[in-house]
Amino acid sequence: MPPKKAAIKVYAPATVANLACGFDVMGLSVREPGDELSLMLNSSGKISVRRIIGDGGKLSSDPKKNTASVAIQAMLDHMGIRQGADIVLRKRMPLGSGLGSSAASAVAGVFAMNELLGRPFSKSALVPFAMEGERIACGSAHADNVAPSMMGGIVLIRSYHPLEIISLPVPSQMYIALVHPQVEVLTRDARAVLPRKIPLETGIRQWANTASLVAGLFSSNFTLIGKSMEDHVAEPARAKLIPYFKEAKEAALLDGALSFSISGSGPTVFAVCKGKASALRVMSSIKKMYRDKKIPTDQYLSPVNRDGVIVIP
Amino acid sequence: MPPKKAAIKVYAPATVANLACGFDVMGLSVREPGDELSLMLNSSGKISVRRIIGDGGKLSSDPKKNTASVAIQAMLDHMGIRQGADIVLRKRMPLGSGLGSSAASAVAGVFAMNELLGRPFSKSALVPFAMEGERIACGSAHADNVAPSMMGGIVLIRSYHPLEIISLPVPSQMYIALVHPQVEVLTRDARAVLPRKIPLETGIRQWANTASLVAGLFSSNFTLIGKSMEDHVAEPARAKLIPYFKEAKEAALLDGALSFSISGSGPTVFAVCKGKASALRVMSSIKKMYRDKKIPTDQYLSPVNRDGVIVIP
Repeated sequence: MPPKKAAIKVYAPATVANLACGFDVMGLSVREPGDELSLMLNSSGKISVRRIIGDGGKLSSDPKKNTASVAIQAMLDHMGIRQGADIVLRKRMPLGSGLGSSAASAVAGVFAMNELLGRPFSKSALVPFAMEGERIACGSAHADNVAPSMMGGIVLIRSYHPLEIISLPVPSQMYIALVHPQVEVLTRDARAVLPRKIPLETGIRQWANTASLVAGLFSSNFTLIGKSMEDHVAEPARAKLIPYFKEAKEAALLDGALSFSISGSGPTVFAVCKGKASALRVMSSIKKMYRDKKIPTDQYLSPVNRDGVIVIP
Repeated sequence: MPPKKAAIKVYAPATVANLACGFDVMGLSVREPGDELSLMLNSSGKISVRRIIGDGGKLSSDPKKNTASVAIQAMLDHMGIRQGADIVLRKRMPLGSGLGSSAASAVAGVFAMNELLGRPFSKSALVPFAMEGERIACGSAHADNVAPSMMGGIVLIRSYHPLEIISLPVPSQMYIALVHPQVEVLTRDARAVLPRKIPLETGIRQWANTASLVAGLFSSNFTLIGKSMEDHVAEPARAKLIPYFKEAKEAALLDGALSFSISGSGPTVFAVCKGKASALRVMSSIKKMYRDKKIPTDQYLSPVNRDGVIVIP
């Protein structure tokens, strides 16, 4: 058990949920962007959000509404202890972009508190507390951003009752190019366009693909990974919410991306590439397309992040 | 290339399609039951079905209606050659039982002809011809019985256009207990009860399970294999066509089966077990339940058959 400290700073990475075919059940962690969170214990008996930097004033610092404080409180309530602490949150990622911003804050919060309390929980045992943060942010306690941000790597959520998270192998040379067109897509709208029912044939194609994606990851077969990452469920419905989605996809695939789809509920799009050079080419190509259409973007290039949330100096 | 022969005898094994969660996309091969097929070249220029043994007179020996001859003819047509041959088919398996009887005959036919012609095709290249036999038998050219009977092992059909078959790892100690209650379930009826559409939530559970089943197979994790093999799509609809399905499932799981579901469209049920002793116990337990209900059964116990169709003496 590490020595107890009174303050700590952590970094929780952004995540790509769904991974095309694995709607609502798969996700992976990238190196950046991400959230920095500082936590300082105090004797107030209350969790306070002292400061939020980089959110453009959009996030609430009400401890009952902020995902980091809600997640920490869920953990403390579960342990049956009262502990005061101050949170300083530095958002180093765009909000509402489909990169798991609320999940990253919740993960950072519970991970930081767990460290300061002497690590009573394993990382995977912290996931349910972070999910309570997601419940405040999104209305439902999803794990497909929280789990990869916490654990790192590529994860599969097989079941919610009970919560069962499976870490999948990460092929070396697997790089992710992320491009965030700066337009607003409300998660609410992205949920509303989803079909309530799907044709059985569509389901069959989707569960063939999740199965073969896992086979591709276990065998480091990039061709199979690329072919399997096609989404017949969410992408057809959500693509229309993202400006020039079709053009971005064409540009990415033409430039060698193995697959291309929507990160979470968008509007960020992502490409899976073999190797850094390929990912860089693909990212530039998507960015250029958006620049030509006069839509500003943020972009990030990263291998799959095997670490998840970490302590930083 | 092996020396050409004028006659050959082959054995094509029965198969378990769907594997619970993998509806329409997964299947595995067992050692028995299966079909024996003898093929003798002649100079007639026509494929004839000389004799069928063990079918109780139910199968057609019209070469345009028998799955073996239809599959062979599809192969010869593709090659653009005329070749006469006589088929003798010995069914060593129940018909219409959900064990891939028509697929086994088609596989046996094309495999035998391929051997006699000096192996112009690989096993996987023969699959599409055998699927033409399935088209005659079932109305659609499915591969989920044909592919495992041909290739052996556990297979995933990721896509039909183009046909893409992925061989999955077979954990040693993976045994299959099969029990065939002797009642008739028409494939037509088993298809008719399937939903045309499924709730999105059901699809999500199903594609989480196919993904985790593959992870379980790659990591020889029997607990994960068992948990993943649950079917939220076909089994709930088809269970009512199989007498005492619920009782059989309870008996199997109580006696240590890792999973239990319907083989193909039924009425055969199957259990996946770790080790032969466990599979034997489970098989006896299901069989006893049916005996108590006065329903006669056939039963088979086998590890996963890694070979698929083979030449026999």
